[in-house]
Amino acid sequence: MQRYFVAKEQMTDQVVKVTGEDMKHILRVMRMDIGDEIICSNNDLRTVRCVISEIENQEIIATIIEDLTPNSELPVEVTIAQGLPKGDKLDLIIQKGTELGATAFIPFSASRSIVKWDQKKAGKKIDRLVKIAKEAAEQSYREKIPTVFDIHSLAELKKQMPLFDSIVLAYEESAKEGEKAQFATALNTLSEGQRILIIIGPEGGLTDEEVDQFLLEGAQACGFGPRILRTETAAMYALAAISYHFELMR
Amino acid sequence: MQRYFVAKEQMTDQVVKVTGEDMKHILRVMRMDIGDEIICSNNDLRTVRCVISEIENQEIIATIIEDLTPNSELPVEVTIAQGLPKGDKLDLIIQKGTELGATAFIPFSASRSIVKWDQKKAGKKIDRLVKIAKEAAEQSYREKIPTVFDIHSLAELKKQMPLFDSIVLAYEESAKEGEKAQFATALNTLSEGQRILIIIGPEGGLTDEEVDQFLLEGAQACGFGPRILRTETAAMYALAAISYHFELMR
Repeated sequence: MQRYFVAKEQMTDQVVKVTGEDMKHILRVMRMDIGDEIICSNNDLRTVRCVISEIENQEIIATIIEDLTPNSELPVEVTIAQGLPKGDKLDLIIQKGTELGATAFIPFSASRSIVKWDQKKAGKKIDRLVKIAKEAAEQSYREKIPTVFDIHSLAELKKQMPLFDSIVLAYEESAKEGEKAQFATALNTLSEGQRILIIIGPEGGLTDEEVDQFLLEGAQACGFGPRILRTETAAMYALAAISYHFELMR
Repeated sequence: MQRYFVAKEQMTDQVVKVTGEDMKHILRVMRMDIGDEIICSNNDLRTVRCVISEIENQEIIATIIEDLTPNSELPVEVTIAQGLPKGDKLDLIIQKGTELGATAFIPFSASRSIVKWDQKKAGKKIDRLVKIAKEAAEQSYREKIPTVFDIHSLAELKKQMPLFDSIVLAYEESAKEGEKAQFATALNTLSEGQRILIIIGPEGGLTDEEVDQFLLEGAQACGFGPRILRTETAAMYALAAISYHFELMR
């Protein structure tokens, strides 16, 4: 069944009001009418099945039939700090990362990031990424849309680090040296409800200086297997492994 | 260091001969010369570090300095049977699947595959996919280039199934019902050196009839976590989880 995220205030005890782009999608793309059912999430872990009962000029009113039990969020909160990659790779990272359960994304300007966002365009780019996250969250039956943060500097990212229970640094050199145990160890020491930050460099990796700074702040350098992953693949690896560890093995 | 795959007969005890596109890449893209080092794999688990010693019209001769210990192949052989997806998604599946360690890819025509390959174009499309696999294998430091098979019918795919020790069917309905244990169980019963087949439907999934046929042939229906993954994400999930299970947890 088609899913839509609505703002918290659009969902009351009995009804959901759907407006804007989602209203257009329901009427023009899905060609739905009164009597058709949709699923709506309020992006705050309430998800309901409802039936379209009124179609007005500016809004669709859907009557709630039942509350659905939330069950599609990862048991740990995973934030991906991604060194700004080239081209449209960030689109892919956010789409796939959302499907795979990420809670938030922090794009950051790494020393080796070739792309630099200028202030003027950054807002539009983030808006586009937020839209990708919303659509991927709907498609993958998430109950929360991941947060896409504005681009962070290295200093700003470091300020966020104390907020996490565990910090994993995807480190190519660890992969080359055959380091294997760190990531599994980090996941083993993480409990449900805790927050983990995964830091991933851009193409060309993080500089030694960046790595040292992250390690000083408590990050653990981890290999994601012996193969060298492209930057956009590392986030997917981390999230799939976290899902396997916390959702399938237990 | 830059990596190249060469045919088995191009690598002798002492030297490697590099020709064709790879020779062009060394000279024109990398702008290397006599004395520069490269790494070459013979796609049969022999990987060597060597130094360019002669540049002739049709070939580069590189003298072998040392054999490197192979260590980048997954301990189990994973074949991805992918229901033909839309657009260029197969490119992404093969690029990312190669980075993540797949041994082979079998594209198959599923009932709900919207794209149909005509005989004339299929050869060219497979050539393109083979090239993507080679480049991704070089980039990710693989020792073997995954095999990309010609497109299979359902009957042809079924004929391959007895060759595998374990067959996993990525099943959306299992994910929706919260099925969790099957995939981890399948991996737990798999030993190093064994072969596993992962069957993934196209957009819209497999039909009930296809699912029944695969189950009859011994496939196990598995959920890859509670979120609904796009078809191209399922292969990445499976491979990352297999890497985590066999390479990092042990």
